[in-house]
Parts: sequence; C-alpha cells; structure tokens
Amino acid sequence: MKAVRTIEELRSGIRALQINLGPEATVGLVPTMGYLHEGHASLIRRARKDNGIVVVSIFVNPIQFGPGEDYETYPRDEARDLALAEAEGADLVFLPSVETMYPQPTKTKIMVSDITTRLCGASRPGHFDGVTTVVSKLFNIVQPDKGYFGMKDVQQVAVLQQMVQDLNMNVEIVPCPIVREEDGLALSSRNVYLSEEERRQALVLSRSLREAAAAVSEGTAVTAGDIRNLLKRVISQSPLADIEYAEVVSFPGLQPYPDDEEISRKDEAVLMALAVRFGRTRLIDNRLFNPKEAN
Amino acid sequence: MKAVRTIEELRSGIRALQINLGPEATVGLVPTMGYLHEGHASLIRRARKDNGIVVVSIFVNPIQFGPGEDYETYPRDEARDLALAEAEGADLVFLPSVETMYPQPTKTKIMVSDITTRLCGASRPGHFDGVTTVVSKLFNIVQPDKGYFGMKDVQQVAVLQQMVQDLNMNVEIVPCPIVREEDGLALSSRNVYLSEEERRQALVLSRSLREAAAAVSEGTAVTAGDIRNLLKRVISQSPLADIEYAEVVSFPGLQPYPDDEEISRKDEAVLMALAVRFGRTRLIDNRLFNPKEAN
Repeated sequence: MKAVRTIEELRSGIRALQINLGPEATVGLVPTMGYLHEGHASLIRRARKDNGIVVVSIFVNPIQFGPGEDYETYPRDEARDLALAEAEGADLVFLPSVETMYPQPTKTKIMVSDITTRLCGASRPGHFDGVTTVVSKLFNIVQPDKGYFGMKDVQQVAVLQQMVQDLNMNVEIVPCPIVREEDGLALSSRNVYLSEEERRQALVLSRSLREAAAAVSEGTAVTAGDIRNLLKRVISQSPLADIEYAEVVSFPGLQPYPDDEEISRKDEAVLMALAVRFGRTRLIDNRLFNPKEAN
Repeated sequence: MKAVRTIEELRSGIRALQINLGPEATVGLVPTMGYLHEGHASLIRRARKDNGIVVVSIFVNPIQFGPGEDYETYPRDEARDLALAEAEGADLVFLPSVETMYPQPTKTKIMVSDITTRLCGASRPGHFDGVTTVVSKLFNIVQPDKGYFGMKDVQQVAVLQQMVQDLNMNVEIVPCPIVREEDGLALSSRNVYLSEEERRQALVLSRSLREAAAAVSEGTAVTAGDIRNLLKRVISQSPLADIEYAEVVSFPGLQPYPDDEEISRKDEAVLMALAVRFGRTRLIDNRLFNPKEAN
C-alpha cells in the first residue's frame, strides 16, 4: 500500500497499477474523513472484493462543515487510519491537505435541490453542497468505476445517487450496510465525543428504530404518525436525548409521508431516520425497510 | 461521420473509434446549440487538428434560457448542421433530445459564484448555472480530452475554466478566436434575428471595440472610465442600439476596473465586453487585449 498526498502522485499511482493489472482492473474509491472504524473497514473490504484497484481517501472537508460545527475538533489519527487501510487491502491512500483540494477557495459548487433541504439538510444548510462538491472532485481525480458509501449517512447516499444520475457521471454509487456495535449503536467517528452516560443513553436510537419496525410488522403501528410517535416516545425515555428529527420518508426521494398515511402495507422502500443530540454530540441513525416484506 | 441521438450510441461510437485508432487518439468535443456558422466551423477544424476523434454536440439547452428568452424560437437547421459538421471532418455528431439530456428535471446544478454575477450574468440570472450543468453532463458523457469554445462567449469561457479548475475535471478548455463577417460583425446564430437596418447598425459593436483599443494604444483613452465613455459614445451613434453593458474588466477574473484606474499601461489581459440590444435581439461582442503590448 502506498500513501500519497498530492493529486499527481495519486494519479501516477493509479496509472502504475492499471499498467500492471491491465485494462480489466476496475477502480473502487472509498471516500472518508478518516478516524476509520469497522464501518469504513467494511467499505474497504467490499471495494477490495469488487475491484482490481482500491483507493481510500482521507480528507476532513472544511466546506461541508457549517459555522459552529466540529471541523476543528473532528477526530484525526493518521497512523491508525493507514494501518487499518493497509490491513483491509487498500492499494492507495490519498491524504490531501486543504491546500491540495482547495488551492483557492472554490467558486464552483454542485448543488442538489429538494432532497437536500430535509432531514439533516434542514439543520445543516450548505452541508450537502460541500459533500457533492468534494465527492465530485474526488471522482474527477480518481476516476473510479465505483464509489463506496455507508448507509448510516443515508441522505448522503440519496444525494450522491441523484448527482451521479443528473450529471451522467461515470461512476456507480455502492451503498453499504450500517455497521453497529454489539449493543446496536451505529458506528461513527463522532461516537468518541460521547461521555459514558451519553453513550449508554444513545442506544435509544437503534432501539427506537428496531421497535418501530417491529410495531409496523406486528400491526401496532400503521400510519406514518404512529411511527413518528413511537420513535419519539422511545427516544424520549433517554433524558439526555434532544431530538432534532424522527422522520418517516420515502427513499430515495426523501418525501415525508403525511401523518395519516398508512405505511404498514406499502410495498416500497420506507426510511425511518433520526438525528438526536446528546450534549454537544449530534448522532444520526436510520433504518430502510419494505413494510410489505417485513409483514 | 455518424449522427447519433442516444447516450449509448454516442459512447459506443466513441469506443469503436478508440479501438480503431488506439489509446493515443485523444477526443475533442465541440459543444454547440446548432445552427452552425463559420465560427463553429473554426472550432471543429481546430478540434480536428488537435485530436484523433472529434465529437460535435448539438443541443439547445433549455435550462440556460430564462423566462422570456428565445428558447422556443432559437434557430434550428439540423440538415445543414450535419452537412457542415461532416464537411469539417467531425467523426460523431450527438443530437440528443431534451428527454435524453433531462429524463427528469435535473435536481443537480453546478454553480460558479462571483464571475457569473457580472456582465451577461447580471441580466441573465441562472444562465451560467445552465451552461455549467449541461457542459459538465456533456463532459461526463463524452469524456473528452479537450473542449472547444468560441471567445465570443468570453464569460462562458471564464466560467467553464473556473469550473474545470475548481472541480479537478480532466478536460482542457480550449478558447478559440472570435470569427467575424468581413465588415466586422461577430458571427452568431442569433444574427438571423436582425432586420437589414439592425444588421447595419450592429456594426457599432465591433467598431467601438476597435476604436477603443486604438485609443488606448494611441494614449487618447487612458482610464477605464475613458474606455467606457468611448465605447458608449460610439455605440450611441446607432439610434437602434440599446446598451445593456459596455464594460472594462480583468480577465479571467472579470473584476470591473474602477473608472479612474489607468488601463493603458497595464501588462495584463484586459477585457472590453459589450451587450447591446437591437430591437428584440441581444448581441454580445468583446475584445481581449494587453494594453502594454498594444502600445
């Protein structure tokens, strides 16, 4: 494995591998913000399985953080990240500086409308513009056949799929399952921010999603309103939980279902999505399911 | 030459040529809105000289027209366009329908800030977002090494160069010189809109630019204000001319020089740019020059 910091090194590294492996070798890209955990490891493994060449990028992208968000304090551990990427079989790790990615402040942004305004977009204006812009830069730099993204950031997956489709980009977005701790907490680099007590109470996120899905399947929650109420009721059992949203929306359109809409017999992808603050830490989690199949 | 209407046909047409010509054959793209004239012909010839494979696209892009603009009436003549493209040696002409380019209304737009707000951007809000979005789609579909654009649309060239740089796109924007009628009128598909009298009076555009450059070179126009006054004075000699702007700005930054700024000794690219209406027809023209070298 080779770690590189400049665009030129990365491109020549990919070219060298392509010459070695021949034109059949596809390129898989795993874009990350570093502080890698088992969720990222699962993405790298999947990319390794699918492709001849695996590139991992590690870049804490300033333009996707809003004022007052945690750009400065976002956890970083380059040495550990490199060891993990190597252990999972990455060929190249790209660790650009901010100056490499933004030699001048970017005047160009890629903006996806509509689906970026809801859920996380409502409280993080400009966040998804920063994500689509940096991901398209990485796509242009690496020119991957496939890009791997975790479903924990489900709205990000929907937004990137929309971008790729609208702009005819030559890359397939591969969504990968959420990886959880044994007790259900979805893995996130931000989990390190949690105090022991917050960490314990944060289990209500996955629990509320599990209980809601079970209630839909058992017929005790029928409408979107029932599901929203159930999610909020369960989460509120944690006194430290401050709910930002607890939503039921279509996927990938992310249209909220009206409260009185019957969800339990829908034969389509339905997304339950949560954002909850514990102290200064904002956690998200979600569950995508087909109510008809769950019955 | 082959004319194709779908993305699949285009991509397989390019692939076939690449297999035939080998990996050294670069791809040149000439994006147009059709109704081709000698200006477009010069772009195709330049692309032919530079590349193994030449693709011309013809697409009147609805999302770069504002309400009340001439999308519906924009001149079209497919048969003549195909004959011209063939005569100039194009390999492939891509004539997508609106449904092919926008199977759903696009939620994704590429937006360049700052330099899109001035000159034509001031009177055509959203125009350059439509241009950058469709050009990036064409770049993703064709994957050209070089894209050819006429300098008559000088702001478009600046905006596209900004986009390519900011997003790390793998394509070189090649600006090509303005082509003029013998009497100086810059070629434009929109010239067909002009009445005989408007056509005659429209010569003030190129004449004002010529006279202003001469005045700078002779030292009779020194400041940006002098140049603006001269441009407006000459254009106003045509009673049908309705000036939208007559500007002196830096290039490619498109920053307006203050009226009292001395231009005549600058050793940098200076752009004089005009937009003038004749009846219902909006014409643009410009001249890019280095005052120091012109002296």
